[in-house]
Amino acid sequence: MSETKALASYVVNAEASSIPQDVRNEARRSILNYIGCAIGGSRHTAMDRAIRALGPYSGKPTARVLARTEKLDPLHAALMNGISSHVFDYDDTTPQNYMHPTSPLASALFSYASVNPVRGSDFMHAFVLGFEVESRIGNAVYPAHYDVGWHITGTAGVFGAAASVGKLLGLTVEEMIWAIGLAATQAAGLREMFGSMAKAFHPGRAAQNGYSAALLAQAGFTAGEYGIEGPRGFATVQAAKYDLSKVTEALGTDFNLRRNTYKPFPCGIVNHPTIDGCIQLHDEHRIDPASIKSVSLRVAPLVMDLCGKKAITKGLEGKFSVVHGAAIGLVRGKGGIQEYTDEAVNDSVIRRVRESVTATGDPSITDDQAHIEVTLTDGRKLTRFVEKSLGNIHRPMSDKQLEDKFRDQALPILPAAQIEKAIGLCWKIDELDSVNALVEATVPA
Amino acid sequence: MSETKALASYVVNAEASSIPQDVRNEARRSILNYIGCAIGGSRHTAMDRAIRALGPYSGKPTARVLARTEKLDPLHAALMNGISSHVFDYDDTTPQNYMHPTSPLASALFSYASVNPVRGSDFMHAFVLGFEVESRIGNAVYPAHYDVGWHITGTAGVFGAAASVGKLLGLTVEEMIWAIGLAATQAAGLREMFGSMAKAFHPGRAAQNGYSAALLAQAGFTAGEYGIEGPRGFATVQAAKYDLSKVTEALGTDFNLRRNTYKPFPCGIVNHPTIDGCIQLHDEHRIDPASIKSVSLRVAPLVMDLCGKKAITKGLEGKFSVVHGAAIGLVRGKGGIQEYTDEAVNDSVIRRVRESVTATGDPSITDDQAHIEVTLTDGRKLTRFVEKSLGNIHRPMSDKQLEDKFRDQALPILPAAQIEKAIGLCWKIDELDSVNALVEATVPA
Repeated sequence: MSETKALASYVVNAEASSIPQDVRNEARRSILNYIGCAIGGSRHTAMDRAIRALGPYSGKPTARVLARTEKLDPLHAALMNGISSHVFDYDDTTPQNYMHPTSPLASALFSYASVNPVRGSDFMHAFVLGFEVESRIGNAVYPAHYDVGWHITGTAGVFGAAASVGKLLGLTVEEMIWAIGLAATQAAGLREMFGSMAKAFHPGRAAQNGYSAALLAQAGFTAGEYGIEGPRGFATVQAAKYDLSKVTEALGTDFNLRRNTYKPFPCGIVNHPTIDGCIQLHDEHRIDPASIKSVSLRVAPLVMDLCGKKAITKGLEGKFSVVHGAAIGLVRGKGGIQEYTDEAVNDSVIRRVRESVTATGDPSITDDQAHIEVTLTDGRKLTRFVEKSLGNIHRPMSDKQLEDKFRDQALPILPAAQIEKAIGLCWKIDELDSVNALVEATVPA
Repeated sequence: MSETKALASYVVNAEASSIPQDVRNEARRSILNYIGCAIGGSRHTAMDRAIRALGPYSGKPTARVLARTEKLDPLHAALMNGISSHVFDYDDTTPQNYMHPTSPLASALFSYASVNPVRGSDFMHAFVLGFEVESRIGNAVYPAHYDVGWHITGTAGVFGAAASVGKLLGLTVEEMIWAIGLAATQAAGLREMFGSMAKAFHPGRAAQNGYSAALLAQAGFTAGEYGIEGPRGFATVQAAKYDLSKVTEALGTDFNLRRNTYKPFPCGIVNHPTIDGCIQLHDEHRIDPASIKSVSLRVAPLVMDLCGKKAITKGLEGKFSVVHGAAIGLVRGKGGIQEYTDEAVNDSVIRRVRESVTATGDPSITDDQAHIEVTLTDGRKLTRFVEKSLGNIHRPMSDKQLEDKFRDQALPILPAAQIEKAIGLCWKIDELDSVNALVEATVPA
């Protein structure tokens, strides 16, 4: 059986009862993390501009944009949810393919659930299936696909959105095959956009396009039947090397959600070991920033490729700058939303320390590690080797840390009692009679 | 100056008076051909299904879908115009990159012009500039981009739509750079979809996405500044080999519109020499289909790659079948819309002749040529070598032939007098006070 048909059949026929408890639990953590990010990003300028540009073209305003007072049609709401949940680069990551898996998927699902009655158990099932579809397709084409410059969150995410919305729509296998084909032929997003608002546009558009792929398929709008594996299909066209066995291997028994990770810092994940280690040095030595003469980093070579930006002036650029990550860790002892504003990037103390940092790619250092050496003005050297960064799959954030991250992001936007209510609804999402209750809990009174 | 900036600056600063007369004339021919195709495709099932699926999500119905009574918001109308104008594969082609250049571009422009007052001279200027942008980007990445499996009409077309709508919106150079970046990061469409409705979805989505890229850029939604040439930009990511000098070479003096061609037959252009030659044999020898024993074709190797389908049961598949092209030419002496219906593909006489055709790729035969040998049941052999096919740039369709093609397509849909009115408006499009007059002329009373 073709990979496209195998995936489509699996998604159409899967039953909610077959999802193991640990996978359900990780789905709850992913959704909690996602909702916090969507609330946190809901006031970003990118959101205001996207809504100003496209709001006038929205259909009937029936769907809630998470954490905003505006309503839009569900396709536009899916787009906006994708932008808000990814704009601070604070959402989840699957380290096996560097995808941000939940944003494209959940952005479509929550929009769908705000205009259609969806039971929590069905929602969670569609989420788990969509996560599996996009992860498996991403795993099959990683790393060649990512290395050449595709933003895999957009390109693989559109499949997840299509499959999960298609599940809720009750598509037949043939329709699901078309939905996957229509997703394949819309798979897009270039890493060249990193550092601009267009990066967060990728999961948003993936959510919107995947959602509409499912709607088109339901109406009988046909697509090629071999969207993933065909001779001119997604894998061949978008990856110099790929392994299609990863699409179907252990389908239904192995779940990629088990390998999801959550970011303690709102920036490119490869910067995390550096920030983590610099915070440790800050906390242990109570370093006066003025006493820092120079900083030397040894990091994985990929870090230099993804996050080598040195001369930066914008908050968004800071997310792709490992030297900025070192500076905020050492100067402020934290790396939160406030450390990635335009103000923080242009703060004179942070800038001076940042300009004193030298980063070198070292093939003996893994993506989860960093070696930091701080030289002080008095000649002393402070060093730290981070072997496994916080948020790493081997050192995961706890439920409590995820809740605190949610609160940090939501506090400027929602009253404390409402935040606790939303957190509570995330933890029991699969018990809700209607998922719209959670959607509405994100909206300021 | 970077290619993206050079193109953006050219589009923003170009003045209508700088467009030469012969280019304007070819723009009129392109628009006439486009409007005829959009009318001809307006009743296709793909249109009905797309409107059924996405119509409920449309914004305020202010924009006219060409030749339909429905109105949608302008972004959805752009999508639908792209589907109708390409669904019969009857629209124009630039042989230097195998793109269908007008559909993604004009589909956005006519939608824009149906909700905004646009003078004909401004419309034509935006059209010429958008044509240039998408053609130059297509030329730069062809053939590697196309060969790997990208449907260049979608991938390059989104740039044309963004640039031309951006011109009418009066974007600044910086905004135009963002619009090009947002186009680059949405460039999509797989050749795997050929033979399904999703193929026509490509120029439609390109029109819609390019249009929205321009709107987002106008609202200050930022994108990477090197969308075309950056290290993770469109050219590197989507083509194994490319030549960026083609983006800017002779910009403002050489115009790709001069090399546009129009299809006499509604199918893959590489089939045209075969159909042309078979019609010639039909007309000269008045062949009785029952007397055909076998047919042997020698065609360019690319034909086998693009149009090698033999076992077909659907009209859409016939468009990608050179053996079907031979059969209709020999049996019916024509290759019009009626020869590409499901009925024609399953017609027993056509099917028998089609199954008697053998096609072979021959590297000594160019894309514009075909060698045909028909063996009759009485042992006679009829041969024909087509050196330059009708519609070829060296044997272009005349204005009269283009008008007849328009009439053939429009006759089932519009009264004769209205058809003549619409044709007249196309010929003087650049003199119109408002282009909406032409849009309205496509709509049945």
